[in-house]
Amino acid sequence: MNLPIPGPSFFIGKGDDSLISFGSGQPDLPPPEEAFQILKTFRNFKYGLVQGEFALRTELAKQYPDAEPDDFVITNGASEAIDLTLRAISVPGAKVALPRPYYYSYPHNVTLAGMEPVYYDLADGKIDLDVFKKTAKGCKAVMINSPSNPTGTVQDVTTLKEVEQFCAREGIYILSDEVYKDLIYVRENYLLHGPHVVTVNSFSKTYAMCGLRVGYLYSKDTALVEKIVEMKTHTAMNTSILAQDMALAALSAPPSYVTDYVTIWKQRRDMMYAGMRALGLELWEPEGAFYVLPKFKQSGRVVSDLYYTYRIITYDGAWFGAPDRVRFSYALDVSKIEEGLRRLKQFLETEYTSY
Amino acid sequence: MNLPIPGPSFFIGKGDDSLISFGSGQPDLPPPEEAFQILKTFRNFKYGLVQGEFALRTELAKQYPDAEPDDFVITNGASEAIDLTLRAISVPGAKVALPRPYYYSYPHNVTLAGMEPVYYDLADGKIDLDVFKKTAKGCKAVMINSPSNPTGTVQDVTTLKEVEQFCAREGIYILSDEVYKDLIYVRENYLLHGPHVVTVNSFSKTYAMCGLRVGYLYSKDTALVEKIVEMKTHTAMNTSILAQDMALAALSAPPSYVTDYVTIWKQRRDMMYAGMRALGLELWEPEGAFYVLPKFKQSGRVVSDLYYTYRIITYDGAWFGAPDRVRFSYALDVSKIEEGLRRLKQFLETEYTSY
Repeated sequence: MNLPIPGPSFFIGKGDDSLISFGSGQPDLPPPEEAFQILKTFRNFKYGLVQGEFALRTELAKQYPDAEPDDFVITNGASEAIDLTLRAISVPGAKVALPRPYYYSYPHNVTLAGMEPVYYDLADGKIDLDVFKKTAKGCKAVMINSPSNPTGTVQDVTTLKEVEQFCAREGIYILSDEVYKDLIYVRENYLLHGPHVVTVNSFSKTYAMCGLRVGYLYSKDTALVEKIVEMKTHTAMNTSILAQDMALAALSAPPSYVTDYVTIWKQRRDMMYAGMRALGLELWEPEGAFYVLPKFKQSGRVVSDLYYTYRIITYDGAWFGAPDRVRFSYALDVSKIEEGLRRLKQFLETEYTSY
Repeated sequence: MNLPIPGPSFFIGKGDDSLISFGSGQPDLPPPEEAFQILKTFRNFKYGLVQGEFALRTELAKQYPDAEPDDFVITNGASEAIDLTLRAISVPGAKVALPRPYYYSYPHNVTLAGMEPVYYDLADGKIDLDVFKKTAKGCKAVMINSPSNPTGTVQDVTTLKEVEQFCAREGIYILSDEVYKDLIYVRENYLLHGPHVVTVNSFSKTYAMCGLRVGYLYSKDTALVEKIVEMKTHTAMNTSILAQDMALAALSAPPSYVTDYVTIWKQRRDMMYAGMRALGLELWEPEGAFYVLPKFKQSGRVVSDLYYTYRIITYDGAWFGAPDRVRFSYALDVSKIEEGLRRLKQFLETEYTSY
């Protein structure tokens, strides 16, 4: 009898060579060389602007239509952007509508900001507009996450436009977590926009800088941006000036840095999707990010058995509000994906048959 | 008529050569060379432990008696340590006792954590134990800040021991902000301890790394530390791994790095204190940190006149809960201190006489 596994943090630091990790959602490929180049001459040590270095915000503004540097706040990863935004809009008793399945921090972010999470269930990874509107009505904010962690799905542009219109009409904030915006296999990213939209983004996925912690938020809601900067003055001050400089340098990498990586991710996705289908698993075809979320009976037991007996790390769908599924990240080399699928096959043909 | 100045952030980015800044509280001297050395070979980019790099926590544990690496959480500066701790202990309606004068973020930190600040007034910069106990009684937590920003005073060891005993008896958390622990001119630092003490510290002041944002908290309250790590998983993830590596390298600097700086700070303090006394100002002799807080009539008008007419940046005591005082940081070169005092003399002998 294998022990239950309490959550993702259980796996931190468990990285010996016998393990195949479909766990953590971070790129295994390095950041652009440009990011490391600046380290040779870096000498700053004084406080920076709480809102973020002006040069970095200026470069980001070029990526967004009609954006100004002052529409951005540079944060300690997308996590802090979400945390600060929710705290800034929080009023007692307010509700925030989250997609389900959700990134596992979202419900915590909402409750930590003193609000209550409610959920709009996705239908096969897609927003059902009726369900969405019924849930979002009367909420202070909604969270949109396309491409999605953990579902790997991308929302249709027409759906996203209707979400925009509905929320603008109802005066509901949209927090659009677009950290996988550069990892979409089916179309260009669609940037949600509107008077009360906060776009959350990050250098972690696009530029493989997870541990360096540079994210940002972008919004045309000036009053909200000012409130967030004022809050950050007390809760963290500026994001590390050095990490910001690396992020700025990363932006100067040639576009091929991003497109080459997308080619690699696509190859992994195809192998993962085809491999799982061949094993008879039921899953959605990944459209973005680097996750699949196949169906399993007794997901907790699956995760435990796969770890203890087959040396595979996976994440229980229950941690993401999908208790009948298991999340596999394919942020690893194709040779490892192959070996992982081989072990998974073994599990499916033996242990799993007795569940 | 000069314009009123709304707060410290007004001065950010105002640094032309004609200005003498007694404003911002950050060292002007560089971090140890060791901190920059590691940049040459730094190649990491993956997520680190949310609690902080183990090597850094191991080194920190050597600085504290009976400490273990797991007693520490590495944070985005002391600010995040304070924010996370207050959020972790927060219960609705709870009060937190703050010293007055206070570091200007404290009241915001308490309200942002959903609690209510109450104040124990310092008597000439010192804790009055009767006032303290009366205020602290029934509070969830008290904040201690010795050496203090903005008063520059250090609390007596006997007072601190009585604070420890009182709070242990009453079950009150102590947040001890000791970021100036290595900048004390009158004695060694006294580390507050007890079952519910959270020590907040930073590399910003000791190692002149303000902009790099590495702070930490230390506590023997294991359950609280775990709760804080869990919270940080959702609100920010790990502190930038690169800044942590620089902090670890800074710890390997020879002890003379710190002691040489203290010599420089002492010289500046002496010049500042003697100079202000010679100008007839009423102030406390600085015992630690790098601030003086002399008395002034109409502090807001003083700060405005000094800035617009005399090109001196100072901070209004009102921002720190001391409306009859003005804060001067002496984190600047002696030649600039001299020039600043010369201008201040001019102001005192002319404009100020008509207040």
